[in-house]
Amino acid sequence: MRLSQYFMPILRDDPKEAEIVSHRLMLRAGMVRQESAGIYSWLPMGYRVLKKVEQIVREEQNRSGAIEVLMPTIQSADLWRKSGRYDDYGKEMLRITDRHDRDMLYGPTNEEMITEMFRSGVQSYKDLPRNLYHIQWKFRDEIRPRFGVMRGREFLMKDAYSFDLSKEAARHSYNKMFLSYLKTFQRMGLTAVPMKADTGPIGGDQSHEFLVLAETGESEVFFDRGYLEMDWQASGISYDDAEGLQAAINGFTSLYAATDEEHDQSEFEARVTEDRRVTGRGIEVGHIFYFGTKYSEPLGCLVQGADGQQTAVHSGSYGIGVSRLVGGIIEASHDDAGIIWPKAVAPFDVGLINLKVGDADTDAACLSLYQQLGNAGLDVLYDDTDERAGGKFNTMDLIGLPWQVIVGPRGLKDGMVEVKNRKSGERDTLSPEAALQRLTG
Amino acid sequence: MRLSQYFMPILRDDPKEAEIVSHRLMLRAGMVRQESAGIYSWLPMGYRVLKKVEQIVREEQNRSGAIEVLMPTIQSADLWRKSGRYDDYGKEMLRITDRHDRDMLYGPTNEEMITEMFRSGVQSYKDLPRNLYHIQWKFRDEIRPRFGVMRGREFLMKDAYSFDLSKEAARHSYNKMFLSYLKTFQRMGLTAVPMKADTGPIGGDQSHEFLVLAETGESEVFFDRGYLEMDWQASGISYDDAEGLQAAINGFTSLYAATDEEHDQSEFEARVTEDRRVTGRGIEVGHIFYFGTKYSEPLGCLVQGADGQQTAVHSGSYGIGVSRLVGGIIEASHDDAGIIWPKAVAPFDVGLINLKVGDADTDAACLSLYQQLGNAGLDVLYDDTDERAGGKFNTMDLIGLPWQVIVGPRGLKDGMVEVKNRKSGERDTLSPEAALQRLTG
Repeated sequence: MRLSQYFMPILRDDPKEAEIVSHRLMLRAGMVRQESAGIYSWLPMGYRVLKKVEQIVREEQNRSGAIEVLMPTIQSADLWRKSGRYDDYGKEMLRITDRHDRDMLYGPTNEEMITEMFRSGVQSYKDLPRNLYHIQWKFRDEIRPRFGVMRGREFLMKDAYSFDLSKEAARHSYNKMFLSYLKTFQRMGLTAVPMKADTGPIGGDQSHEFLVLAETGESEVFFDRGYLEMDWQASGISYDDAEGLQAAINGFTSLYAATDEEHDQSEFEARVTEDRRVTGRGIEVGHIFYFGTKYSEPLGCLVQGADGQQTAVHSGSYGIGVSRLVGGIIEASHDDAGIIWPKAVAPFDVGLINLKVGDADTDAACLSLYQQLGNAGLDVLYDDTDERAGGKFNTMDLIGLPWQVIVGPRGLKDGMVEVKNRKSGERDTLSPEAALQRLTG
Repeated sequence: MRLSQYFMPILRDDPKEAEIVSHRLMLRAGMVRQESAGIYSWLPMGYRVLKKVEQIVREEQNRSGAIEVLMPTIQSADLWRKSGRYDDYGKEMLRITDRHDRDMLYGPTNEEMITEMFRSGVQSYKDLPRNLYHIQWKFRDEIRPRFGVMRGREFLMKDAYSFDLSKEAARHSYNKMFLSYLKTFQRMGLTAVPMKADTGPIGGDQSHEFLVLAETGESEVFFDRGYLEMDWQASGISYDDAEGLQAAINGFTSLYAATDEEHDQSEFEARVTEDRRVTGRGIEVGHIFYFGTKYSEPLGCLVQGADGQQTAVHSGSYGIGVSRLVGGIIEASHDDAGIIWPKAVAPFDVGLINLKVGDADTDAACLSLYQQLGNAGLDVLYDDTDERAGGKFNTMDLIGLPWQVIVGPRGLKDGMVEVKNRKSGERDTLSPEAALQRLTG
């Protein structure tokens, strides 16, 4: 993409409404624009990151055996009256009356709808287990939306719902999501620590939230360094091996981890040696629940068991805040100059800076690199604008692409371009061929 | 995907609420489920098609130079008051009051919001031209939603918006979308005929709608066969060649085409020889508008021209009904037994039928084909359920995958499986190796 043909409205100054770093950087880098309180448009740069995060979530859900569907944003209030949650949910639910005076709502979550969908589509125990998920916009009418996409009103969530014949089988489904979440966050360059949590308005008797370390997190967290050391992608645990999966999760969660609400300092000190204690702040990016028959019973989601008896299915629900993660990744990965994107979610792989647009040699060298990097499968943002060099450097650091290639007439005289690693700050002067090799090798 | 682990709730009988064939087949094939009047969930099979259609639309938008963004579903009423459309839009607009008593609405379209976004992000003529699009759920509170996803209330639309310095430049943007639409529909196996249209509530002075032939279409259409004969993918017209593009479109649209509203039978007969006259019914799947400064003036979307003068930008908007297209494709491509998916949008490439689950040889032959077809990059739906053969055949015809591979002990005794082409109905008895060759070659 040529910057001269893109839409990336950079702000030179810090927007005063932004209280936290991710919000500030997303506005400055032209990633999002607030349309109403807690409601954002995703501009091209932000949209690219959102899509990459969404795709990682999708791939890891699919690998765990979950099946994607898509439920609508607008729901009938009737369903929520059946489950008893219509009145419970309070003012966070955006209630709507349609032209025929029917009570509708903008879904804040989908336990009722998916339970109905599943109920109407299955007959017998042979149709279980299943895990159905969707990635859809939700609305929660927060009284005081803040922190940009971290606590917006309209937000993109992945929510999965498992259906099992028994509590034991449901435990296996829960554990699959547990492992899938660890892999998902790790692929985005995040270390998420699972912590036991309250079940809140979802209900049920088991729940974990997944927190990512970030200075601006909403809770204080205390945990064993072991949580940071596990490579879940490489762990080789099979989703189908119920026992092995349970054992791995038991071992892992036997390490101390608690938010301030549940934290016990003396237990922390007794169980974790000083050099292994991690304390900091955490942002919730995922939350999983086992709630048994809480929705299947009132909604009549029964299946015929192998013994011919009708039995209510055991369920759990599993959320990941997809749009929130974009902010969460920035909270965890930035410096004074701007964002530092982990490779897997970077909007472009390389920023190519032309220091003298209009100079025939520089233009030709840039065009050649642009094409060759593109041919090698890399996404390149080519700054071919007539801005001054200083402005171009600042913009490129702000938007945080993993690599920068800087091309100017002075270097080219010696046949050289500069390659900069955004994260380490390391710069190397290389021939264009060697630069290409460095980035594609 | 193994059908025994999938979620595809097939209906054996025709649902009585379905008035048209696409609605009936989508319900029977377990593609969608109605949640409220005109509001659908997309079950796994339907979701796969929806995503393929969406992706084709996206790729062709990107090729034309349009840039993807994502605007929220919920908008502030204030914007619509500024443009003067808040009161005009009538009861089709879903109006919402949030917890702070602010007037909001579920966007039926986004001219106002994108104009504001663009205005706040650009300064000068150097930032033009641009075309920004998004693919997002919209809501129109139709008084009588019907025909399934063809006329739903919550629907997925691609809407693009172009911004130009002059009427002439805007014409080029309009023409790019024109060509892009022809390519988009052609990739889905559809022939869309562009027809001059009223501008309606969008406004402006130029508009074309793109209609796809289907018996159940809402309008009668009359056109020259030439519209069906052009290969737009292969046409080699460059988006950047404004004159060549204009000439191609002029030539193309000089052929007669009109809906019943504008049709003139004597002109039709005078201009089109009898053997080249096509009449039938058409469904609108796309609509493009040039509306000049209708929104940029009230919303103050001005840029500084090369001469230093502030000038209102010239705009157009360009819609494709993404969810509607899924129904439209079925309307155009089915037979008595069910859907016939064009390859590019088929939910799976191949349906693999195991005629005797539990028979060791048959299971082994199926598993081997399943793996080899998958390794060759094909998506396979493997019917490994214990249903009877007749039921399996009916289901596979109903869901309309392009190819079926049928494996049973009788054929295997002679080392043979059967390959069926869903569209032609042709069946061939082949060795598994030859079957693999046929499908992957």
